[in-house]
Amino acid sequence: MAHEHYLYESISEQLRQHIRTGCYSAGERLPSVRQLSQMFGVSVNTVVQCFRQLETDGYIEIRPRSGVFVHATPPGQTRLAEVLSFPLLPVEVSLSEDILHFMEPHVENNLVRLGIALPSSDIMPVERVMRTLREITRNHARQAWDYCHPHGLESFTHQISHRSLKYPAPISHGDIVVTNGCMEAIELALRSVTRRGDTVAVETPTYYGSLVALDVLRRRALEIPTHARDGLCLYSLEQAFKRGQVAACLISANAQNPLGFCMPAERKQRLVELASHYDIPIIENDVWGDTCFAGDSLPIKAWDRDGLVIYCSSFSKTLMPGLRLGWVAPGRFHKRLRELKQISSITTASAPQLLMARLMESGFYARHLDQLRQQLAKQSRAMSHAVADSFPPGTYITQPAGGCALWIGLPQHIDSRVLFTQAMAERIHIFPGNVFSAGPRHFNYLRLNTGQPVDATVQQAVHRLGELAGQLAGH
Amino acid sequence: MAHEHYLYESISEQLRQHIRTGCYSAGERLPSVRQLSQMFGVSVNTVVQCFRQLETDGYIEIRPRSGVFVHATPPGQTRLAEVLSFPLLPVEVSLSEDILHFMEPHVENNLVRLGIALPSSDIMPVERVMRTLREITRNHARQAWDYCHPHGLESFTHQISHRSLKYPAPISHGDIVVTNGCMEAIELALRSVTRRGDTVAVETPTYYGSLVALDVLRRRALEIPTHARDGLCLYSLEQAFKRGQVAACLISANAQNPLGFCMPAERKQRLVELASHYDIPIIENDVWGDTCFAGDSLPIKAWDRDGLVIYCSSFSKTLMPGLRLGWVAPGRFHKRLRELKQISSITTASAPQLLMARLMESGFYARHLDQLRQQLAKQSRAMSHAVADSFPPGTYITQPAGGCALWIGLPQHIDSRVLFTQAMAERIHIFPGNVFSAGPRHFNYLRLNTGQPVDATVQQAVHRLGELAGQLAGH
Repeated sequence: MAHEHYLYESISEQLRQHIRTGCYSAGERLPSVRQLSQMFGVSVNTVVQCFRQLETDGYIEIRPRSGVFVHATPPGQTRLAEVLSFPLLPVEVSLSEDILHFMEPHVENNLVRLGIALPSSDIMPVERVMRTLREITRNHARQAWDYCHPHGLESFTHQISHRSLKYPAPISHGDIVVTNGCMEAIELALRSVTRRGDTVAVETPTYYGSLVALDVLRRRALEIPTHARDGLCLYSLEQAFKRGQVAACLISANAQNPLGFCMPAERKQRLVELASHYDIPIIENDVWGDTCFAGDSLPIKAWDRDGLVIYCSSFSKTLMPGLRLGWVAPGRFHKRLRELKQISSITTASAPQLLMARLMESGFYARHLDQLRQQLAKQSRAMSHAVADSFPPGTYITQPAGGCALWIGLPQHIDSRVLFTQAMAERIHIFPGNVFSAGPRHFNYLRLNTGQPVDATVQQAVHRLGELAGQLAGH
Repeated sequence: MAHEHYLYESISEQLRQHIRTGCYSAGERLPSVRQLSQMFGVSVNTVVQCFRQLETDGYIEIRPRSGVFVHATPPGQTRLAEVLSFPLLPVEVSLSEDILHFMEPHVENNLVRLGIALPSSDIMPVERVMRTLREITRNHARQAWDYCHPHGLESFTHQISHRSLKYPAPISHGDIVVTNGCMEAIELALRSVTRRGDTVAVETPTYYGSLVALDVLRRRALEIPTHARDGLCLYSLEQAFKRGQVAACLISANAQNPLGFCMPAERKQRLVELASHYDIPIIENDVWGDTCFAGDSLPIKAWDRDGLVIYCSSFSKTLMPGLRLGWVAPGRFHKRLRELKQISSITTASAPQLLMARLMESGFYARHLDQLRQQLAKQSRAMSHAVADSFPPGTYITQPAGGCALWIGLPQHIDSRVLFTQAMAERIHIFPGNVFSAGPRHFNYLRLNTGQPVDATVQQAVHRLGELAGQLAGH
């Protein structure tokens, strides 16, 4: 039974990869059941079972009496043709100026903020947290005042380590280094395992912050085709590993920004196996991990027995961005990363660590996360409906499993930078898709923030965006 | 008059430099008044005036009817022989392990903390600051909660810029980038203007944190002889500039750690001129600048019209180390440094900026600094007396103009690492001198923290240290 299940899973995954990597392209007819059964050396029944699964997943279309065809534009995933049409080549990144241009309006007033992906403070327990902070200024004033231990406050790192007890390979509290947010963790990780000129594998589309980090640190990016529901294409990644092209990976497996997927657990495990086999470090950006409202949210790190996964996270998306409190579990790169941390900022501030230790100990943070996930799921659905109601036919929308971003594909190759400019003129801030890649990709996509309740103002803004997109599409 | 004053200053400085750099060595007879008057083309009176000044400064000894001799061991400065006996050669730094070894005991309990140089929270307005922080959690909760603008909070950067209005070349608030403490500022500065393998000029002795930064970033150090009262030897520095040896300087002009000097204003100006002439950036670590209780505390940056000085500071030494709030004014390297900041930590936490803006606006911080400087001066004197009363004959002690460190030279080449081990056995933490250089220097020096009131416990600890040093010296 276990063996059959394995066979069926393994063949489904191989077929999915063949489709994603273009071995079978959109609209193409797959080999027959009999051919595949011979090819894989399995029963006809197993192949039929695979087909049913792939059909449910939206990869294929079964046309009675005609055969089995690769779906032209499967629902819930980026358009295959676009994902598959580029070669695996490392590229220089030079995006910083572009991103600053699109990011800077965010701080302006009188703006509908659909650009930066971030839960609004309106749905956050601001008063409750501020009250706990006041308690700390009263009862732990001296501790808050002084330098903290370079590795971090023990009561805080213990809480972080407790949360990992459910992992197959838990994180010990001594392995944790506390940082100024997740971005510092990622940057320390990059500097620990790569050098100037090295190539780093990233998803495409990926968080623009990762690309800026590569840009500023003069690392090159190798963009790996990424599926909007399953994540990174492991086949392509292994090809890059085999060719010795990459020094490290920088990826997200949970509530990935901007696609919103949670990678299935077995694919996370396979990723860890690949990293171990080829001895390539994985920098895991799990800053959105705690916001998963669907799917399996264990991080890749959960299976990391060889210490090759450098796990990075923070509370900026799940609680308080202004806190600037993050952490990293650097596995076997602990010594180098700790040194880099110590010189880059000596220690992380004490008060935020005292605050989070308290909020986690008391169970408040776990309860807050439950509520936050429900709220984000609700907002994501509402926003998705608003987009579906307002945008022109042919618009593509992701179905995120977490986070607060919708990744939207515009029809007829509309350049979302044009939409950005038109929307800004009406005080609506969005993020164009081109900044989620170092190459000329995703230009007809945009990312919308679902971090705020979808009230009348947001509804109206989305409606207006839809109208503008419709005009650009000539509707 | 101005011209004469200039001549007199200029010749005094040249003579000082000749002495410091070994052109005239300890005990050597200087040329006669008449010879020098011809050599410099000035009046005999001017030379006599110079001699008087140099005698007052402790550089020379005027022996009636014999001549003028270089002082063997001038008071208030490191022993010349040691400062001068090494060649100007860039070296690899590998100190991180050593420093962690000497630093780590600091966090232990039941310790007399004379190792880390830091004002004790006992002399700090902890309650007053915590009260203001509570006000912020009540009245500015949303602002404290959210991400701050990447450059920093305007009300805060305005206050920093206001403080520079007294400079010949003030810092505009738009030039400031807010950081997680001074160490982040220094590291961003180093990464902005140097690359792996580059050489950076530092003082010797210098703050070990600077050396660790060079170590971790794989930059080499060129240690420039440094005078315990006048600072960096500009003659040596210029030699290094001329030879194209250095990519940048990383130095402190005010209350330098560990020597405690404030560089005279005219030497700071000369340094800026040198930097401009040779087009070499200066990273100024001014973290102790506000603690100067004697001497001229304008930073080097005050005269920087070409934007070559990258000014770094924080509140860790003057108020609250746990705040982790610093800033940098990067001059012409603003763009690159801002990018590096944005990826290394996105923004700096909001609450600390709101807190310091409030404490500066209200005038509280300025009043606090006045009190702090008086207190530190008092503690420095008391500690100096305690050392003079307890340590063996031949011990050398600096006379700091600011900060909270005493730099102590032990007689007869006693290795202060031995004293460190013996002192730790009696729960007294000190910092040995060898970590203040990348080379085998200063091993018979130690640094004592004068950050706490010199109470009976401290007195007793110093007394015991003196006894141990006496035993090591064979007294």
